[in-house]
Amino acid sequence: MKTRFQVRRRALTALLAESKLDALLITSPANWYYLTGFTGEAGALLVSKKGATLVTDGRFMVQGREEASQVRILQQKHSLFESLGHFLKKSGHRKLGFDPAQLTVAQMRALRKSGGSKLRWIPASGVVESLRMRKDASELSQMRKAAALADEIMEFAIRLLKPGVQESKVAAEVEYQMRKRGASGPSFETIVASGERSALPHARPTTKRLGKNELVVLDLGVILGHYCSDMTRTVFVGRAPKRIRGWYEAVLEAQTAATAAAKQGAACGDVDAAARRVLTSHKLDRFFVHSTGHGLGLEVHEDPRVARGQKKPLEPGNVITIEPGVYVEGIGGIRIEDDVAIHAGGTEVLTRVPRDLIEI
Amino acid sequence: MKTRFQVRRRALTALLAESKLDALLITSPANWYYLTGFTGEAGALLVSKKGATLVTDGRFMVQGREEASQVRILQQKHSLFESLGHFLKKSGHRKLGFDPAQLTVAQMRALRKSGGSKLRWIPASGVVESLRMRKDASELSQMRKAAALADEIMEFAIRLLKPGVQESKVAAEVEYQMRKRGASGPSFETIVASGERSALPHARPTTKRLGKNELVVLDLGVILGHYCSDMTRTVFVGRAPKRIRGWYEAVLEAQTAATAAAKQGAACGDVDAAARRVLTSHKLDRFFVHSTGHGLGLEVHEDPRVARGQKKPLEPGNVITIEPGVYVEGIGGIRIEDDVAIHAGGTEVLTRVPRDLIEI
Repeated sequence: MKTRFQVRRRALTALLAESKLDALLITSPANWYYLTGFTGEAGALLVSKKGATLVTDGRFMVQGREEASQVRILQQKHSLFESLGHFLKKSGHRKLGFDPAQLTVAQMRALRKSGGSKLRWIPASGVVESLRMRKDASELSQMRKAAALADEIMEFAIRLLKPGVQESKVAAEVEYQMRKRGASGPSFETIVASGERSALPHARPTTKRLGKNELVVLDLGVILGHYCSDMTRTVFVGRAPKRIRGWYEAVLEAQTAATAAAKQGAACGDVDAAARRVLTSHKLDRFFVHSTGHGLGLEVHEDPRVARGQKKPLEPGNVITIEPGVYVEGIGGIRIEDDVAIHAGGTEVLTRVPRDLIEI
Repeated sequence: MKTRFQVRRRALTALLAESKLDALLITSPANWYYLTGFTGEAGALLVSKKGATLVTDGRFMVQGREEASQVRILQQKHSLFESLGHFLKKSGHRKLGFDPAQLTVAQMRALRKSGGSKLRWIPASGVVESLRMRKDASELSQMRKAAALADEIMEFAIRLLKPGVQESKVAAEVEYQMRKRGASGPSFETIVASGERSALPHARPTTKRLGKNELVVLDLGVILGHYCSDMTRTVFVGRAPKRIRGWYEAVLEAQTAATAAAKQGAACGDVDAAARRVLTSHKLDRFFVHSTGHGLGLEVHEDPRVARGQKKPLEPGNVITIEPGVYVEGIGGIRIEDDVAIHAGGTEVLTRVPRDLIEI
């Protein structure tokens, strides 16, 4: 029986044959994990129809042999890209695909120099990412678990909120619980943003204490069995005034509309437009300063992008976030975010904490 | 009075004038924080003698205005590098420095396209990094605090070790304590590697439980007030057999020798050689599979590299790690790591937990 890594490499070599590439250079850790199981932090993977070769340094050789036992592993002698070039020169490959977004100008220069002039470097963007977008049953099962753990942690986090508690204290307790409950860590730095700070969509937690009559945005996710979750809830400390309640209801309506629009075959840009249309109808669109969502999987931000004008149609196996928000400088922000899996038969919302405004 | 950010930008523009560059493009978050105080995660900074301009997206505009109030801030209209190119086209700059190691092939292509053909792109590597290497008094003071907190956390971690406890449990408790004691987080994923796993220099914590008569490598650091610490101690669960004790003494001797060699004016490669020479004399050099150390500051790995053949002389204000180790596949590993600051008058070891073999 083939391992899942072999199945994925087989799918990749089929794509390479279509694009008439002899081999593809892979320099992103998420991509090499997806194709081999290697979790080391440094190296590069080359996949061709002849097989896969991982080049890494002395720190990761033992780990590479344990985790990626079906793959040939070479220890670099010089710098990674120099060694890789020397290997490629002897490999007989001619047309080599690389991702221009994942190779620096310096790395490209080193490869061209050490690989010699017979190699042709062909830009090939997002090839492995296009496979990763379509999660298989075992990946979806893992992502359900990651989402369920985020639910648990969100409920835990909400119970910690009260006037006087520091944002950073809440974040510390939250990330500790993630680890205690089996996560390898947070999928990104937990956001606990209160009062005016909640108007910063990517605020880092500070020593600021929660005040009365403030909004608090909680945005958190875990990595569980390599897969990420990502969710946001917004809480009001006290009884929300009418204006805040109105904003909240508008964001909730936008999030509901975008979730309803997220179906097999719908363009990602249409999901974004569904959220934006609702906020426009409430005259709040200018306070929605980011995209509606993003793909989720081995990385917390991956394909597809759920943003203005994106034509890519949603396919079964896609997992995306849906997270409209409004941010009013000097007052505060509101965001509601769920993780959603697209199936042939309908859409599954993976994160399940109720979305109504929570007043504490 | 000038802020520290203004002082640093002034030092940078002096370097640019020397290299006859009109402006420098900065795309690394640590570099833009160093020069402006902006802690947002996305954007790009342009520094010229006329001033500094930060380009970022809607998520970070409010934060940018708060944190980098002396700097001009532009909100990108299209993709970051497209907007940046349009801005550059109108800026009147001709000779633009960029770091080939910090710009992807795709970003370079977008810049060349949107910036127009009149711009000349000049590779300029590690310019801001060369400033960051020489820490000033306030940075050194902050790094002492980050090292002192790592000391506290290391002592806490050692007390957690006992047969039966899971590596991942120790890592979770350790990172929780970091946050509780004021760190914004770990400076890298905490390593708790026991038994055979300690032979993996960059092992991730697993659910493996510590066994009796095993080595445990603890490698941890905190980010405190933006600055990193990084330290390692190795513990034996039980009474170490003679062979393990011999290896430990050899690593300790290598670490002591390298620390003694780390003086103003010494080449970084000589510090590495000092450690390697000791391990060679014990016939253990082939088990030392990484470099002796690295610079430390806003990032956990920065310049200078303390590796074989590095000619760069150490200067006052440099802060480096010294961390030789031996890793024997199937048995285990030993590493001892301190953070060291280079002064004109001598060397200051910032991390102070005793280095003798700890048996528990």
